[in-house]
Amino acid sequence: MSYHAVLSGRGRMKPPKSAQTILEVKSRKGHRAREAIFEAAIRVAGAEGLAALNVSRIAEVAGIGRASFYNYFDSVDDVVAELMKRLQEELEEALTEVHGEFDRGAARFAACVGEVVKRLSEDADFANLCREAMRGSEEVREQFRKASRPEIEAAIAAGASTLSREEIDPYLDLVGLAVFSGGAEAKASSRRRQVDILLRAAGMA
Amino acid sequence: MSYHAVLSGRGRMKPPKSAQTILEVKSRKGHRAREAIFEAAIRVAGAEGLAALNVSRIAEVAGIGRASFYNYFDSVDDVVAELMKRLQEELEEALTEVHGEFDRGAARFAACVGEVVKRLSEDADFANLCREAMRGSEEVREQFRKASRPEIEAAIAAGASTLSREEIDPYLDLVGLAVFSGGAEAKASSRRRQVDILLRAAGMA
Repeated sequence: MSYHAVLSGRGRMKPPKSAQTILEVKSRKGHRAREAIFEAAIRVAGAEGLAALNVSRIAEVAGIGRASFYNYFDSVDDVVAELMKRLQEELEEALTEVHGEFDRGAARFAACVGEVVKRLSEDADFANLCREAMRGSEEVREQFRKASRPEIEAAIAAGASTLSREEIDPYLDLVGLAVFSGGAEAKASSRRRQVDILLRAAGMA
Repeated sequence: MSYHAVLSGRGRMKPPKSAQTILEVKSRKGHRAREAIFEAAIRVAGAEGLAALNVSRIAEVAGIGRASFYNYFDSVDDVVAELMKRLQEELEEALTEVHGEFDRGAARFAACVGEVVKRLSEDADFANLCREAMRGSEEVREQFRKASRPEIEAAIAAGASTLSREEIDPYLDLVGLAVFSGGAEAKASSRRRQVDILLRAAGMA
């Protein structure tokens, strides 16, 4: 299932997770309109950046009136929050399989990064939104660090990394830049070579 | 002399270099109007990105009519070209002194990167414009690679770098990301720690 399918709600197998989501999806018709708005937001944010998102632009691309937007979302911030939530879910989904194959540490970190690089090359929307999210939000960058830190800590503890604990965060910021910047334009081969250099920098390759 | 001073033409010691520039600066009055447009472009590009540059926005910030813009520049592309030219001149100026202190190679590369990181932390406009330039233009990224490649090649030849020749460009792209992304927001200490990790990745620290 492509990231775009997940983001747009097509091909979504799992039921909505939270009570709030269930309440929001009141009817099929309401659901479709909501997803049209959401899909418009993905397109605008992917092509022009998160900063370009506003109600007028989203409504224009979704082909609805400005007022209709407010039937489904309270604000653009709400759309962005939902976008970030689905982005995170998609990343987690991508990594669940990898997580089952390795113990925590250097090899798992490398495999996870490799899986994300692969997904980015397969899905332009995913790639552009990840770039936008990492570029625009310190919170998202911190989520990435938080998810990755335990792997590096395990690698250091196992003697499989030459990084010091103080270097973990600047190192993860570099990995984030190598993996996510460039969006859909960056070639997978170029991302992979950068990641290889960084793994070697940490003594993990 | 700060980068902003250079960009805005204030404090400029050297005479204009090309015949074209001399022709363009026809009178003091014309020069002042041109620099007002130019300074507005710096402000808009620095705060909102190069993509936000258009004649209306520049004219608005410069406090002139749209038509007046065309008395001094043929297009926004011309402004951007001039912006990139001055950016490059400022970078060259920053590095001239460093270049005199070292032979080509690992130590000079590290010193040059350190000097640029220092300048970025001193001048928010410079930092934001460099970020924008590296983000938006493959040509600018290639200029950065072209200027830096000989240092890495010399380091490899002298056995002072563990990089292979094929790794030079992805490595330089990583250094570019570490140094220039984040704009004025990124802390100098964070940039420096990232650069240290990258120098170690290349066996140069």
